[in-house]
Parts: sequence; C-alpha cells; structure tokens
Amino acid sequence: MTAYRDWANDDNAALLTDLYQLTMLQAYFAEGMEETAVFDLFIRRLRERNYLVACGLDTVLHYLETLHFSPAALDYLESLGLFKPDFLHYLADFRFAGDVYAMPEGTPVFPNEPLLEVVAPIGQAQLVETFLLNQITFQTNIATKAHRVVQAAQGCTIADFGMRRMHAADASLKAARASYIAGVDFTSNVLAGQIYGIPVTGTMAHSYVEAHDSEAEAFRAFAALYPETTLLVDTYDTLDGVRKIVALAKGLGNAFQVGSIRLDSGDLVALAQESRRILDEGGLERVKIFASNSLDEHRIADLLAQGAPIDGFGVGTRLGTISDQPYLDSVYKLTEYAGQARMKLSSQKSNLPGRKQVYRSYAAGKATHDVIALVDKKREGQPLLQKVMHNGQRTEAGRTQPLNALRESTMQSLAHLPDRLLARGKADPPYRVDLSEELQGSLDVTRHRLEQEMAAR
Amino acid sequence: MTAYRDWANDDNAALLTDLYQLTMLQAYFAEGMEETAVFDLFIRRLRERNYLVACGLDTVLHYLETLHFSPAALDYLESLGLFKPDFLHYLADFRFAGDVYAMPEGTPVFPNEPLLEVVAPIGQAQLVETFLLNQITFQTNIATKAHRVVQAAQGCTIADFGMRRMHAADASLKAARASYIAGVDFTSNVLAGQIYGIPVTGTMAHSYVEAHDSEAEAFRAFAALYPETTLLVDTYDTLDGVRKIVALAKGLGNAFQVGSIRLDSGDLVALAQESRRILDEGGLERVKIFASNSLDEHRIADLLAQGAPIDGFGVGTRLGTISDQPYLDSVYKLTEYAGQARMKLSSQKSNLPGRKQVYRSYAAGKATHDVIALVDKKREGQPLLQKVMHNGQRTEAGRTQPLNALRESTMQSLAHLPDRLLARGKADPPYRVDLSEELQGSLDVTRHRLEQEMAAR
Repeated sequence: MTAYRDWANDDNAALLTDLYQLTMLQAYFAEGMEETAVFDLFIRRLRERNYLVACGLDTVLHYLETLHFSPAALDYLESLGLFKPDFLHYLADFRFAGDVYAMPEGTPVFPNEPLLEVVAPIGQAQLVETFLLNQITFQTNIATKAHRVVQAAQGCTIADFGMRRMHAADASLKAARASYIAGVDFTSNVLAGQIYGIPVTGTMAHSYVEAHDSEAEAFRAFAALYPETTLLVDTYDTLDGVRKIVALAKGLGNAFQVGSIRLDSGDLVALAQESRRILDEGGLERVKIFASNSLDEHRIADLLAQGAPIDGFGVGTRLGTISDQPYLDSVYKLTEYAGQARMKLSSQKSNLPGRKQVYRSYAAGKATHDVIALVDKKREGQPLLQKVMHNGQRTEAGRTQPLNALRESTMQSLAHLPDRLLARGKADPPYRVDLSEELQGSLDVTRHRLEQEMAAR
Repeated sequence: MTAYRDWANDDNAALLTDLYQLTMLQAYFAEGMEETAVFDLFIRRLRERNYLVACGLDTVLHYLETLHFSPAALDYLESLGLFKPDFLHYLADFRFAGDVYAMPEGTPVFPNEPLLEVVAPIGQAQLVETFLLNQITFQTNIATKAHRVVQAAQGCTIADFGMRRMHAADASLKAARASYIAGVDFTSNVLAGQIYGIPVTGTMAHSYVEAHDSEAEAFRAFAALYPETTLLVDTYDTLDGVRKIVALAKGLGNAFQVGSIRLDSGDLVALAQESRRILDEGGLERVKIFASNSLDEHRIADLLAQGAPIDGFGVGTRLGTISDQPYLDSVYKLTEYAGQARMKLSSQKSNLPGRKQVYRSYAAGKATHDVIALVDKKREGQPLLQKVMHNGQRTEAGRTQPLNALRESTMQSLAHLPDRLLARGKADPPYRVDLSEELQGSLDVTRHRLEQEMAAR
C-alpha cells in the first residue's frame, strides 16, 4: 500500500463535502435546474452564550474563489460509479460564480441572523454547504469562547496554549486566529504565528527541569539563553521553586532579567499569593506571575475574584476544544429558489424565507436590538450584512484584512454589547432580535402556501 | 496584504508545535544535552469511558519520518529574534532519528498505559510532543466514541455524517478514518473516501425537496437518477412523505428500487413505527428506515430499546465533536534521561518512570487485566507495545496497514473486552491495571531520590 498524504489543501478541498452535495449537484445538472438559490447560514440557539462572534469568513471566501475539481478528484468521483461522464465533464470546469453577503468577521451575532447568505445557481450554492458550516461553526464558536475568556481576565494577558488537545491540525490554526481576533494576546502555535502573524509566546516544560541535575541548574541555563523568559516553578515543590528564582536573582545581580514565573498545578490562589510574597520579599516585585492548568472564563474569574495576584493566563484545552459547548447549532438553509421563498415546515427546524438584511440599533453607544428584515425594505439602523463576493470574486469589502486591524474592529464591535451580555451568566433579558413586519408577513404567507400545497396533494 | 494559505502540510508541519518546544530544543543544543530521553504518551483518566481505542499512530509516524524545517520555516524562526544562527543551521539539517514503541492502532488502552514511547535525543523527543498529542488525543477520543456508537447500534448500519460541525478540516478527515477503524460503516466525507478508501454514502437534503415544485416530484427526479437511493421524507410532513414513497412505487412498478427512507426530525420511535406500517402496507417491506438527528450511543440505544424499526443511523455532531467529552486527559511525559528515571513530583500530575511494556492477560477469550512493567523484565501475557520506528524509519510493525485489515484487527481486539466494559454506563469494577513490583519499586525509589535531592538543596 502506498503512503497517502491526508492533508486538506486548495487542490482537494472540493471533496471536503458530504457526498449528497455532489449527488444533488448532479441531479440539478440532469434536471436543468440552474436558477438562483439563496441559502442562509445561521445559528439556531445560543445555549450557554449571550452572543456569538462571527468568524471564519476569510477561510470561506478563499475556498470559494479557489474551488475546483482536480484530475485526481474527478478520477475518484468517476470510480464511485455514481456520476455520469457529462457531469464529470461539467465538474472539470466547475467554478463558484455566486454572490456572498456576510457579516464581517468579529461582528456580534444572534440566533436566526444570517452570518452569511450565498446567492448562486442552486447546485453551486448547495455544494459548498458542508465546508462553509465546517469552518464557520468552529471558528465562530472558538472566537466566542475566546472573547468570554478575555472578558473574564479583566485586562490580564491571555495566551492560547491549546494546540495539543485541539481536534487535529487545522483546528489549531483556525483557533489561534479566531482567538487572537477575539482579544487573546498570544499563541504558542508556531505555525499560526508564521501564517497569520500572531505574536507567539511560550515558557518551559516540566521535562526541561527534570532533565537537569537540579531545578536551580535548569533555571540558570534557561535564563542564560532567554534572559527575559518565564520560568516554570512547580515541577517538584512550587514555593521551593519560587525561592530558587529569588536565589537565582541574588546570584545574577543586574544580569537577572527573568520576566515571570509560571504556576501550573495546585491551589493557584494560595500559591500565587505566597509566590508574590516570596518574590516581593526577595526584591522581585517586577517579576510577574503567570498561571495555567485547566483554565477557562469561570476559573479565571474565580481566581481574580479571590484576589490571586496573577498577571497572565495560559488557556489550553477548555478554550481549544470549547469543552463546555463543543459545537454550535449552525445550519445552512434554502430560503429562496427561482425568486420564490422556500422553507422547511417540519418540527422546530424552520427557517426565515427570502433574502434578508440585519439592522442593529444603538443608544448611548450600546446595541439595543436587531431587526431581521427583507433585503429590499430599507430600515433604520446599521446594516450588518455586506456584499463580500460578486460572481465568485471578492469585493472590496471581502478582501483579506490585516489581522491587527480585524482584531481592533472586533474589539470595537464587542465593546458596543450591553454589559449584561458580557457577563458570564445568561443575560436576562437576552438580546432582542425582532423580525420586521414584512419578514413576518413573508414567513406567514410562505408557510400558508406550503400547507395549502400539501393539503392539495 | 498578500493572500495566505493556512493549510498544514508536510512542508510546514515542523512548526505545528508550541514555541517552547523550539526554545527548549535550542537550550538543549546550547547546553550540549543530547543524551537519550524516553517520553511516554498516556491518558491519565477515563472519565466517562470504560476503555479507549488507541488511534493516530499512522499520522504520527508519517510526521516523524518527514519532519524537516523548510527555508520558509527557518526564515520565520529567524525573524522572531529568539534563535541563534548556529541553531538555525542545525535546524536546517534536523531530522527525527529516534525510536518509537507503540500500541497498534485499534488496541484497547487504559489509564497510565503508554500508547506510545519515544526514545530519542532529548531535544528531538521534546520537539514532537505537541503534534503527537494533537493527533493521538483526538483520534483516540473519536475512535473510542465511535466504538461506543457501534456497540449501541447492535449491528445496524452507522454512517459518519459529522463533517459540518467538526472542528475544521483536518478533524473531519481523521475522524472519518478513526470512526471507520472502530466499526462505523460509511462516511459522507468525500475527501476521506478518496484518501483512505472508506466507503462513502449519502442521502438528500431538505433543500432539494424544497427547490422542487412538490415533494413527489423531488422524489421522482432523485430516484430516476439514483434508483437505489435513500429519500428524505420529513421536509413537510413525515408520514405524508412516506405515503408519497408508496405512491411513487405504485407509479414506477418494477422500476422502483428505492433502498430506504430517512427520518431526520420528530419522535423517531413513533415515526419509524408508523413509517414501517405504511411501507409494509404498501408492499414495501424491503425499503429500509434510516434515521438521523442529534444521535449518539445513548439515543440509538434508547430508540432500539423502544422498538423503533430502524435499520441504520446517520451520526453527526455528537460523534464528530465527541460532545460529551471533547478531550482526553492526555499527556506526554519525560520518564528517563541519560539512563536515569525521571518524574514530576507535584500534585496529582506524576508519571511512571523508565521504559515500560504493557502485558495483557486473557481468560476464556476475554481480557482480564493488564500489567504495566519495566521493559527489561519479561512477563506472562501479550506485550502490547511494539517497536514501530527505528532511527526515524518505520519498522515492519510500523508500516501503514490497509485500512480494512486495520478495521478487522480492531474489531477483533475490541471483541476481547469484558462485556461490562462494553456497556454504556461506567463499568464496576473498572478494568484492572496493575503495576509490576519492579515498576512500583522504581517509582518509589525515584520519588525518594527526588525528595532527598530537594531536601538537600
């Protein structure tokens, strides 16, 4: 058996889809159904969140503008025995030529609001569903969680340390980027640093201490190479480790420039307080305390509320796997075909018909409510959906933004959220999202039409 | 700003690591510390599981045998201002030249048992920690969850439908493979089908039905193109949809070959029973019922226990994000350096020192218990760790196996688990894992030595 290379890339991403997207695409091709469809990507429920931070658009636009079927992909599809020669020939020239309307990355978004609308011949719009959901669900989920962590940290530094337990490689890259946009300061993920320009950071591992003949020697050696580093003090006995830092400072005199210590186990409140005391008594008031170990927004808030003198946090698994809510209830639904509104009737899984716009209103610098409206009825308020792709090409609004500009605009958008939404608990009342009268009317008319059609079957 | 390509691949995977691995590697290089280290990769706790299914080794061996720093990677590292020219020169020629001992993929594994031991010069062994944990944690977690789902389904067909909400692209590939190894029958992920040769499957989406003038027309068109397909019946009214299938069969006569219907909402027990009745009364006894909608091992077991006549299940989000336990407590710990056992002392985070072997004992075809022992003391039982890499090259035991052979051997290994472990609830008693006397002795001696050294500081 020959070795395979199981990495996704621009050349095979067209196959990063559910099989049924391709069988439906062939069906539309065979039936000559090529009228324009509108699909909405939205989240049905917030569950344990008060808002979501839209993220993943840039990945999606790159996918849409480079989407193609390679010869290897076509060979594989042919081998399945499901696809006819004329359809495979059509796929060989396939390009996404639709329009996309989307909320900019970093926009706060609420249930039932389209994060994104795809307007394209129905087969094209259908094919891309799986990849769009795959990227936007995860990136939005992790950007949201990251912002909760940043809020809880009240200005303390936050570093993303989560790669080792994230769900494989792509997640680690997208998570580092999403977390940075949402206010996390650093990542330990070196490739994310290279690709996105995110500042990278790191400390040292217990193994480094253990490999040396003594902890003191490990500290001395590491600080000689990286004078302003962070030293990990809990390999054997935490407070004993801190005292070794003080001893190292005495030994080195002015050459001692260690920036911080890291605590990674035990009672972080008590250990941070004792460590602070030992450092201060040793004249090391300027050495900071950095903490890690199963942290999330709740633990960080608790630590700070209990007065732990911690200056920065390394957040790993609980952020990186969004362990309290590892998925969002995201869906991608047909809302219009051939100029006619469409929706699903059955049990709790309906959608809002037609093309839409979301308008956000503000008072005293804070968002007060949103209105989801039909796109052709202009309203008061800030329209959130922008045209980011036209005929398969990015518009000016869809251009890749410099990451720091995106982080800055995200921080500004999120600062407009009402304080009750930025709390960790469920906001009461939740943020208000209304449907415009016209949209409610269209919803009623479409439902009635479908029920009539069913009754007349 | 130029477009970036944010895909991981063989050429940039060396940077898929935490920054501290590289700073520690430079420190070892600078200090001339290049003696052999042993690192264990193991899981600390089972939490909601009775066993884990080892998975991810093939990904890891491919990474180790291709690991290198590209010119672009070196340029980026240089730009950080942390690394010296002689070290960057060393990295340019860096190759992983260590040995790896591992449990074969598909082996049931328990807490504190090494899934994998890396034996290499310390810097090399340290560098690879992050990637190894990233892949093995996720792949083992999802293989385990998949096997629970397969057990609950009692022989019914299971399809992986989870890509859309998994954590980005790489997770969807590795999950499809891990799930297939663990007994899932199909994936909807087309790229996973191409790369690994997993059988692909799919049905149709609600949007396809909605885009047609009527549900009946949608069914007719899809069945004309895919005679043995699965038709989705719950877009408007489920039982009404089933009656349309019966009508379609009457209209088509012998040309009707539809294989199954899919239910995707509502009370799946009642709807499956009613659907079965309607199909049977219409002479369609051979049309199967396939169900989806927020399924996991618990819901599948409940549906079957309540007598739902369901023949197959599409399992998506809850498997694909392992939503009840989205991470494992996996760690990678130094256990030996320069021939001397090493361990961490502090609070609940210790490890077993030295190189080890795991021996599994059986009685009446079922595994009875494991013993973790020092590697140089041979014991009774089946040794689980095999040498899969020598000097950076795969051994015969480390060769990529054909996926179906691997799936078969996994099914055989898992069939040896005691029944109480294969139940959904927590096994009582849990599986027994002993430490050999020699290993317990080494643990005590190492702990004592480290405590003495600390006292003598």
